[in-house]
Amino acid sequence: MKVRVAVDAMGGDNAPVEIVKGAVDAVLARKDIEVILVGIEDRVKKELSNYTYPQEQIRVVHASEIIATEEPPVMAIRKKKDSSIVVAMNLVKHGEADAFVSAGSSGAILVGGQLLVGRIKGIERPPLAPVIPTEKGVSLLIDCGANVDARPSHLVQFAKMGSIYMENVVGIKNPKVAIVNIGAEEEKGNALVKETFPLLKNCPDINFIGSIEAREIPSGYADVIVCEAFVGNVILKLYEGVGSTFKRMIKQGLMSTAISKVGALLVQSAIKKTLKAFDASEYGGAPLLGLNGLVVKTHGSSKAKEIKNSIIQCVAFKEQQINEKIKQNIIIEE
Amino acid sequence: MKVRVAVDAMGGDNAPVEIVKGAVDAVLARKDIEVILVGIEDRVKKELSNYTYPQEQIRVVHASEIIATEEPPVMAIRKKKDSSIVVAMNLVKHGEADAFVSAGSSGAILVGGQLLVGRIKGIERPPLAPVIPTEKGVSLLIDCGANVDARPSHLVQFAKMGSIYMENVVGIKNPKVAIVNIGAEEEKGNALVKETFPLLKNCPDINFIGSIEAREIPSGYADVIVCEAFVGNVILKLYEGVGSTFKRMIKQGLMSTAISKVGALLVQSAIKKTLKAFDASEYGGAPLLGLNGLVVKTHGSSKAKEIKNSIIQCVAFKEQQINEKIKQNIIIEE
Repeated sequence: MKVRVAVDAMGGDNAPVEIVKGAVDAVLARKDIEVILVGIEDRVKKELSNYTYPQEQIRVVHASEIIATEEPPVMAIRKKKDSSIVVAMNLVKHGEADAFVSAGSSGAILVGGQLLVGRIKGIERPPLAPVIPTEKGVSLLIDCGANVDARPSHLVQFAKMGSIYMENVVGIKNPKVAIVNIGAEEEKGNALVKETFPLLKNCPDINFIGSIEAREIPSGYADVIVCEAFVGNVILKLYEGVGSTFKRMIKQGLMSTAISKVGALLVQSAIKKTLKAFDASEYGGAPLLGLNGLVVKTHGSSKAKEIKNSIIQCVAFKEQQINEKIKQNIIIEE
Repeated sequence: MKVRVAVDAMGGDNAPVEIVKGAVDAVLARKDIEVILVGIEDRVKKELSNYTYPQEQIRVVHASEIIATEEPPVMAIRKKKDSSIVVAMNLVKHGEADAFVSAGSSGAILVGGQLLVGRIKGIERPPLAPVIPTEKGVSLLIDCGANVDARPSHLVQFAKMGSIYMENVVGIKNPKVAIVNIGAEEEKGNALVKETFPLLKNCPDINFIGSIEAREIPSGYADVIVCEAFVGNVILKLYEGVGSTFKRMIKQGLMSTAISKVGALLVQSAIKKTLKAFDASEYGGAPLLGLNGLVVKTHGSSKAKEIKNSIIQCVAFKEQQINEKIKQNIIIEE
């Protein structure tokens, strides 16, 4: 049985060209996927006509409207009933798709996830949980934009859901969970962290290792990095910002003298490989966890490769029955 | 008239060797500085005996105790009356020194600053404000560790003090002030940012340019970056963490093949120069603003160069009469 992934053909800076290409690449790579491209039918079909692919693995569902990035999300989700995001989320809601992938408006995806797809019963806040590159591999940053001003009980649910995801989708046994803090000691932190710390410490289902200072995040010290959304968003974006500034500055450095230009030719491929390991787009999109179905947000600037990886990611999520595990491990015991 | 800088000879990972060396380098570089080295007299004098320097520019004040990094700060400041931090802060308090530089326990320095040196009347919370490297030069990150769970009025004072510091000490005319946020729009943010935003917008003394997303910090989009201490601490430490991970990974990349090793020799100096521009130790320490005197916290790992730069930084602070400007521009109008 195929995993059915609805894809927002109109979302992101490179829609529909890169989205459609990513969908085609995904079905060419995997036979166990059916992609439902949601968007303006004529434009999507025209793009599709450029490719050869197994016809039974891609179908198009028409949606006449597009939600722009700058639109107020709640209003957009309520008014634009025939937008690609709303139509695709309704497919998930009604069980016609298992998952939804979009590079469109973050706000609309977060709001739509809650209002249309709906939370799993007992989940207080569905967190956005991107995987970020580290020296050792990847870590899950949870929450990263969905819920500002969170409460301790939310963070405990984030820790549990994050552990289930890392163990079953990313394949890290007994993932190490840490809470972002401004010092290593238990008595450090703001009010939220001080209240949450003992709850995590006493939580039997997770491998809690204590606080993590931001300095240790890139080294891969923890597998699941728990924080409230404001802090998570700052971490994610600064990660990207410092990374791209470094890349630009090193390029300029390499081009600065005649000698360094010659050297640049020789080190080019080695440096590219290094920088690629720190490139978030290699790792697919960020799942919005705790919903009645899977919603994956990819970068607005996503190209075919990130779309393809995000679609493929949905297979592991479905096959590993992440939502069933969340229901069993989180809801029942609470 | 000389600027009198008390220096914690016993603070930090490399005390007293690097601290004493930094003090000597500072007085060799500038005739307008007098350094008061505070610490265990025998050890400090023994170190000093290795150098030739103008004797009238360095004196030693004995302090028999040392506050360790892991000691609970409030207790340490109260009990260890003869520690280098307490003795030096009392010199500032009693007007025998203009400033205090320490690479010792952050917690003890923050607590001691408030309890011993004391706040300028009207300043609610003295923020720690390090200068961080950017593509364009430097930005001031304020607050970065002193006060978690801050209120909007604190952030407004941070913005004003930060503007005065950047304009007068770092020399940036009409510095651009931005508040760290998770989106560019005014309606984005958590409760604290939403409340603070209109206050900053209506503040006549600062050049407020709105929100800054963490992604834009490394590019130098704003000169004064306002945030509460938890977020500021995460930004500062992640900056350092991503930077050092990148350095390590690029070094490994350069050493990965025979060809890249040859190239590495040619690009070495260009890359070093680039990475140096992103090295926080080039920029001296972080001032704790809003106190009756200047307190500067440098990295625990500070070597002579950072100590020297931090001592020299105190001259501009004194000469530009930063505290008088803070009193005039912040306190009187409120």
